[in-house]
Amino acid sequence: MSGNTFGTLFTVTTFGESHGPAIGCVIDGCPPGMDLSEADIQPELDRRRPGTSRHVTQRQEPDTVEILSGVYQGKTTGTPIALLIRNQDQRSKDYGNITETFRPGHADFTYWNKYGIRDPRGGGRSSARLTAPVVGAGAIAKKWLHQQYGTVFYGGMSQLGEIDIPFEAWAHTVDNPFFAPTADAVLIQRLEDYMDALRKDGDSIGAKIDVVASKVPVGLGEPIYDKLDAEIAYAMMGINAVKGVEIGAGFKSVAQRGSVHGDELTPDGFIGNNAGGILGGISTGQDITVSIAIKPTSSIRTPRRSIDKDGNPVMVETFGRHDPCVGIRATPIAESMLALVLMDHALRHRAQCADVRLPA
Amino acid sequence: MSGNTFGTLFTVTTFGESHGPAIGCVIDGCPPGMDLSEADIQPELDRRRPGTSRHVTQRQEPDTVEILSGVYQGKTTGTPIALLIRNQDQRSKDYGNITETFRPGHADFTYWNKYGIRDPRGGGRSSARLTAPVVGAGAIAKKWLHQQYGTVFYGGMSQLGEIDIPFEAWAHTVDNPFFAPTADAVLIQRLEDYMDALRKDGDSIGAKIDVVASKVPVGLGEPIYDKLDAEIAYAMMGINAVKGVEIGAGFKSVAQRGSVHGDELTPDGFIGNNAGGILGGISTGQDITVSIAIKPTSSIRTPRRSIDKDGNPVMVETFGRHDPCVGIRATPIAESMLALVLMDHALRHRAQCADVRLPA
Amino acid sequence: MSGNTFGTLFTVTTFGESHGPAIGCVIDGCPPGMDLSEADIQPELDRRRPGTSRHVTQRQEPDTVEILSGVYQGKTTGTPIALLIRNQDQRSKDYGNITETFRPGHADFTYWNKYGIRDPRGGGRSSARLTAPVVGAGAIAKKWLHQQYGTVFYGGMSQLGEIDIPFEAWAHTVDNPFFAPTADAVLIQRLEDYMDALRKDGDSIGAKIDVVASKVPVGLGEPIYDKLDAEIAYAMMGINAVKGVEIGAGFKSVAQRGSVHGDELTPDGFIGNNAGGILGGISTGQDITVSIAIKPTSSIRTPRRSIDKDGNPVMVETFGRHDPCVGIRATPIAESMLALVLMDHALRHRAQCADVRLPA
Amino acid sequence: MSGNTFGTLFTVTTFGESHGPAIGCVIDGCPPGMDLSEADIQPELDRRRPGTSRHVTQRQEPDTVEILSGVYQGKTTGTPIALLIRNQDQRSKDYGNITETFRPGHADFTYWNKYGIRDPRGGGRSSARLTAPVVGAGAIAKKWLHQQYGTVFYGGMSQLGEIDIPFEAWAHTVDNPFFAPTADAVLIQRLEDYMDALRKDGDSIGAKIDVVASKVPVGLGEPIYDKLDAEIAYAMMGINAVKGVEIGAGFKSVAQRGSVHGDELTPDGFIGNNAGGILGGISTGQDITVSIAIKPTSSIRTPRRSIDKDGNPVMVETFGRHDPCVGIRATPIAESMLALVLMDHALRHRAQCADVRLPA
Repeated sequence: MSGNTFGTLFTVTTFGESHGPAIGCVIDGCPPGMDLSEADIQPELDRRRPGTSRHVTQRQEPDTVEILSGVYQGKTTGTPIALLIRNQDQRSKDYGNITETFRPGHADFTYWNKYGIRDPRGGGRSSARLTAPVVGAGAIAKKWLHQQYGTVFYGGMSQLGEIDIPFEAWAHTVDNPFFAPTADAVLIQRLEDYMDALRKDGDSIGAKIDVVASKVPVGLGEPIYDKLDAEIAYAMMGINAVKGVEIGAGFKSVAQRGSVHGDELTPDGFIGNNAGGILGGISTGQDITVSIAIKPTSSIRTPRRSIDKDGNPVMVETFGRHDPCVGIRATPIAESMLALVLMDHALRHRAQCADVRLPA
Repeated sequence: MSGNTFGTLFTVTTFGESHGPAIGCVIDGCPPGMDLSEADIQPELDRRRPGTSRHVTQRQEPDTVEILSGVYQGKTTGTPIALLIRNQDQRSKDYGNITETFRPGHADFTYWNKYGIRDPRGGGRSSARLTAPVVGAGAIAKKWLHQQYGTVFYGGMSQLGEIDIPFEAWAHTVDNPFFAPTADAVLIQRLEDYMDALRKDGDSIGAKIDVVASKVPVGLGEPIYDKLDAEIAYAMMGINAVKGVEIGAGFKSVAQRGSVHGDELTPDGFIGNNAGGILGGISTGQDITVSIAIKPTSSIRTPRRSIDKDGNPVMVETFGRHDPCVGIRATPIAESMLALVLMDHALRHRAQCADVRLPA
Repeated sequence: MSGNTFGTLFTVTTFGESHGPAIGCVIDGCPPGMDLSEADIQPELDRRRPGTSRHVTQRQEPDTVEILSGVYQGKTTGTPIALLIRNQDQRSKDYGNITETFRPGHADFTYWNKYGIRDPRGGGRSSARLTAPVVGAGAIAKKWLHQQYGTVFYGGMSQLGEIDIPFEAWAHTVDNPFFAPTADAVLIQRLEDYMDALRKDGDSIGAKIDVVASKVPVGLGEPIYDKLDAEIAYAMMGINAVKGVEIGAGFKSVAQRGSVHGDELTPDGFIGNNAGGILGGISTGQDITVSIAIKPTSSIRTPRRSIDKDGNPVMVETFGRHDPCVGIRATPIAESMLALVLMDHALRHRAQCADVRLPA
Repeated sequence: MSGNTFGTLFTVTTFGESHGPAIGCVIDGCPPGMDLSEADIQPELDRRRPGTSRHVTQRQEPDTVEILSGVYQGKTTGTPIALLIRNQDQRSKDYGNITETFRPGHADFTYWNKYGIRDPRGGGRSSARLTAPVVGAGAIAKKWLHQQYGTVFYGGMSQLGEIDIPFEAWAHTVDNPFFAPTADAVLIQRLEDYMDALRKDGDSIGAKIDVVASKVPVGLGEPIYDKLDAEIAYAMMGINAVKGVEIGAGFKSVAQRGSVHGDELTPDGFIGNNAGGILGGISTGQDITVSIAIKPTSSIRTPRRSIDKDGNPVMVETFGRHDPCVGIRATPIAESMLALVLMDHALRHRAQCADVRLPA
C-alpha cells in the first residue's frame, strides 16, 4: 500500500493523473441501504471544479461523475462504490518545457528522486486535480452522517494573503467566489482586486481556511494514536499545499493559561470551545473546529532559478492554466476530508462500543 | 484495532495506564542485526522522565526499561521487541475526588461517554505517562536511522507562554530544564521565575516546541494520503495536549507570495526551506522542520466549574502531582514521534523502490 | 475496509458486480519503472474468460482491459494502476426469477441477511466474474516477479469429480479445455464425455486444482501470523467455491512419521518437498506447491428446495448461463492469487531485510 | 508490521521467544464493560500447557498469566489488554548442538536465510510455545462471543497417524489426553500404545483436528477477500505445523455433484451442512466446521541428514523435550484461532451493518 487509500473502515482508494484518461476512486465500507445516485455527488464536485470564476484555473473540466458499482436500484448495497471521472481538457503540450526541469515548490524534484520516473503532465499524480475523487467520496460521507446524526459541515476562507476576512455567517460563502463568510461588499471587492493584481504580476498567494462540523456524535476517536484530532491533522496536512493545521484554539494555546484554556462544563454544556470539540482525542459533541494554512501556488509565471534532472542550472517560468490561489477552491476539499474522518470514526466507534451517542 | 498501534511497517503497539501495574509497547518490524540493549533506550527515557526539575511533576518514576523479546546475543533478530516499564509511584488516592467528576480540559468526559467506564487514576490511559513507551521505541528508530543514513534529531522550546525563546544552538538545550536552545542566562532565569509564579498561582501555561531531523534520505513519503507531512501531522497532533502543527513556513505561508515561498534550486542545493524539507509529501533531503503548539496542562489547583457523571454541577480543584507546563517534557516525545515516522517511511520506501537515496 | 482490498504493500482493491456497468481494480504499490501495457495483461484475462469451450459458461465477454492510470510512456510510475473492464453481455432478465429466493449453495441467503439488500443479477458482487480483475492484477505481479527473480507459475487440474488426472507435464495444459497437465487423449475424451453428460443432467461437479511457483526467492513470509502459507491459504480459500487448501504434503501429513515428512538437506539442496516450499511460514527456495478443492457450481437446472426472503418454501431451478464445473476456469485465478501473495511478500521482505536472496 | 499482529479490529500482537524472559500479547479493540480477570484466561492456558501427560513435552511451564492493563475494577475499559507469561523452564543448553545446523522440517534454515540471524534456543520465535498468548487472547474472545450471542466452541482429534477416531460426542474430549471425542476405551488404549511405540522409536506423527463453532450470528464475513472462510484458513494455516485446511465438506467437494453438495433450505433451516456454515464468505448461522492437517513434529531423535550454516553436510539428532505429536495439544489452539476470527468479524460486521443477527 503506497499511501493511496484513506481511512480504516470507510476507505477511499484513489487513482489517476492530471492528464491521464481518467481519475476516480473506490469507496469501501459504506453501510448498505442508503439512497445514492450521481445527483448526490455532482453538486459537491461542482463546488470544487475549475473554471467557475476568473480567479481560478481556466481548465474546462465538467468533472462529470459516473457510479460504476455498489448501488442497486438506487440504494447502496454495502459493496465497493467506484466513482469514475473522465479527464476532458488535457493540454499536455503546455507542460512540454517542464519535463526535464524541477519547478520550485513543486513535487517534481521529489517524485523524480523517489521513483526515478515521473508523469510531468500537469503535475501528474501530485496535481490538486486528484482532490476531485475525494470530494466525491466526501459527498457520500456527508450524506450518511447527516442522515444518521444530523451532522452538517461548514467552511470558508478566513484570510487571503495578509487580508483578514472576519467571520459573519457561513451562508455568505455561496455569494462570492472565495467562500468568504462575509456579506461585506467592500471587502469582497478588495479580495477581487487583490487577486487581479496578483494575476497581473504572474504571482500567487496563500490563504487560511476554516472548517467546522456541527452535530457530531460524542465519543468518536480512538486513543492513543488514532485520536480524532490526529486523524484530522493527517487528513488536512495531506491536502495539496497545506503547511499548518490547528484544532480549536490552535497556536493561541501556547500563550493561554490553563485557567483560561480548559473549557468549563455546566449542566447546560461546555462554556467555550478552546478544545475545538475534541478532548483526549475523542469528540465532545461540540463543534469540531479546524483551521489550515495553504501555501501560495507554486506554478507562477515569474521566472525562478532551478535545476534540470542532470543538475544543470535553469530558469523556470510556468505557463499552462493554474490557480493563483489554490486556497480559493480548498474549502469543499477540506470539508470533505473532515467528513471522511468523521464517517470512518463513526464506524470504528460502532464496532467497539456498539452505540453511538447522538449530539445534543 | 482501536488506535493503539502506530506505524505501517515499523509498528509500535502500546499498552498500560498511568496507575496500572506496568506500561510498555511491542515494536514490530525492526530490521535484524542491529546491536541493541537497554543501554540504548534508557538515556532517552531519562530525558523525558518526571522529577528532573522543580518545574515538572514530582512523581518519582525511574522508568527502568526491560527488553522482553526480539534481541538475541545483543542483536535484534527481526522479531517483535517488547519493552516493559513497571509503574512504581502510583498514589491513586490523590485522585479519589475525581472518579465521579469530569476535570475541565481533560479526557474524563469523553472517555466516560465513549466507553461507559474509565480508569480515573492519574488519567488512566489518557495520561501523558503513556508517552514513555513511545520514547523507548523512538530510541530504537533514532539509532537505526543514524546508523543507516546519519540522520540526527534536534528539538527544543521556542516559546513559553508569551515569552519567545530565540534560537541560538541546539547544544544549549541540555543546559537548562526547558530544552531551550539558548545560552542566554537572563532569559533562562526569566523562564524559571515565570514557572515559579505559575506554580504559586496554581495555574499552568502552554508552549511551542520545534523539532528537526537532519540528514534525512531523499524520497521518503507516500503520496497521496500517507504523505510524509501528513504522517508527521498525525504523529504530532496525537501527542497529549498538542493543538497545532506546522511544517516549514507553516501559517506564515498564508501571507507569502509564490515568488517568495517556493524554495529555488541551484546545483548546490535548495535556497531556503519554506517547504520544511517536504515537497508533494516526499522528503527533499533538506532538514525536516516541525513546530507544535502545546496547550496548558488541564490539571490545575484553581477551582473550576464542571459536572459529575450524573450531570450535576460541581467545582473541581485538581491536586496530585502535575506538570504546570506539559510542554517542558514534550521535546523528547516530539523527537521520538518524528523518528518513528521517518523510520516507518524509510522501510516503506525500501519496499517499493528498493534503493534509498542518502541525504547529501 | 470491508474486505475488498487484497495485500499489505502490493494491494489490489476491486469493484463491480456481475451485471453492473463495469468491473475493475486499483493496484497500489507497484514498483516504478517496469514496462507495462494492456498487452501484458490481456493474455491472462483471455485464459480465464468465459465462452472459450462448450464446457464453460456461454456468456460472451471479451474482458477487454483498459489501464486508466499509473503508467506513463509505457512504464509504471509507482502510482496506482487502475484497470477497467466494461461488462458487455448482461442478460439480467435471466435472473428475474431469483430476486426473491435464495439459491441453494449460493451467497443469496447470506448477502440478504448481512446487508438487508442484494444485487441478484448474476450473483452481483459474489459472482466468479469478479475474479477477472484479480487475474489482471496477477499478470502484473507475475511479470514483475519473473523480471526480478525468474519466478514462474504453473497450474492445472488434477481431479475432475471422481476422475484422477495424473500429472505428466505443465506444457500440456494449453492443449485441452480443462488445463489438464496430460497428453493422454483417452483421458481427455473421458473428461469431455463426463462434462457432456453432466450438462445433459443439468448438474455440476467439483474439481481439484494444483498450482506451483518455481524460482521463488528464499526468505519470503512474515511470522507469526502473516506466514507465507497462511497468506496462501487465505488467498486460495477466498476464491469462489474453494472449500479446502493444502500446502506440500497437505492432508497426507496426518499419517506421515516425522522421519518421513521432514525434508532432509544436503549441500545440493533439499531432498523431497513435503514442506511445499515453506518452513516456519517462510519460503525455502523450493517450489511452492498448493492444492485446492473446488466445490460443484451451485447454479444447476435440477430443481431444489429453498425458501424466499419471507421464509416461504419454494422450488428453485437456475437457468441463465453457468459453468457446470467452475473448477475448469479456476487455474489462472489460483495462479494469480499465488502471484499476488508472493509479490506482496517480496516487497514486505525487502522493507525489513533489504536484500532478497535469489532462488538457486 | 512484520506479521505479528492478528486481526483487523480485535487485534492480537504477540511477542516473545521460547527461551526468552517472557512471552505475551497486547489485545486491542476489546469492547468495554465486560467482566474479566486472570481466572477467565488461565483455564484455557491450562488446557494447552505442556507436561499434562506423558504424550506431550515434559517442559514444566505453569504458564501463569498476568493482566498488565485494560482492566479496571474487574471490567474491561476498551483500552489494550496486555497479557504477560514469564518463561520458567528454559534449558537452552539442550539446544547447544543446533545453533549452527538446520534441523530438517524446522524453521532454522528459513529464519537464518531471511534474517541472517536466529535465536536457536527452543526454536526461538518459531516455537509452538508462542501459541500460548493466542490461547489467552482466545479466552477473551470466547467469553465475549458467548455473552453476546451464545456462541460455543468445540474441538478434538479425528485422526492420529493412520488411526481414525470416529466422533461420538465433544464431551468425551476431556476424558483422555488426546482431546478425542470418543468414550471407546479400546480405541483410547490403542492411541496410548501407538504414542508409546513412537516415543520408543524416537519418531513423531501427524494428526487431524476438527473444530466447530455453534450459535454463530448470521452475516459475519467480508467479501471479497476477507471472507470468513478465507480468514479461517489464514488463521489455521498460521498455526505451527498445519499443512491443510478444510471448511465443511472440504476436499470431499471435489467428487460431489451440485445436486448433492448445495445445502437445501426449508422454513425450518438448512438441510445438511456441506457449506460448513459459510456461503459466499459469510456465515449462515449454522455450525462453522473446520478440519486441519497437522504434520508430524520435526524434532525427533532419529538421526537425519542436514547442512550447517556454511553448507557442510551434518547429521542431526534432536534432543531436548518435544511433543511426539504436536497435534495432541493443537485443539485449544485451533479453537482459539477460530474464536479470534469470529470476534474480529463480529466487530467488523457491527461497524458497517450496525445490527448483528443472532443465530437461530
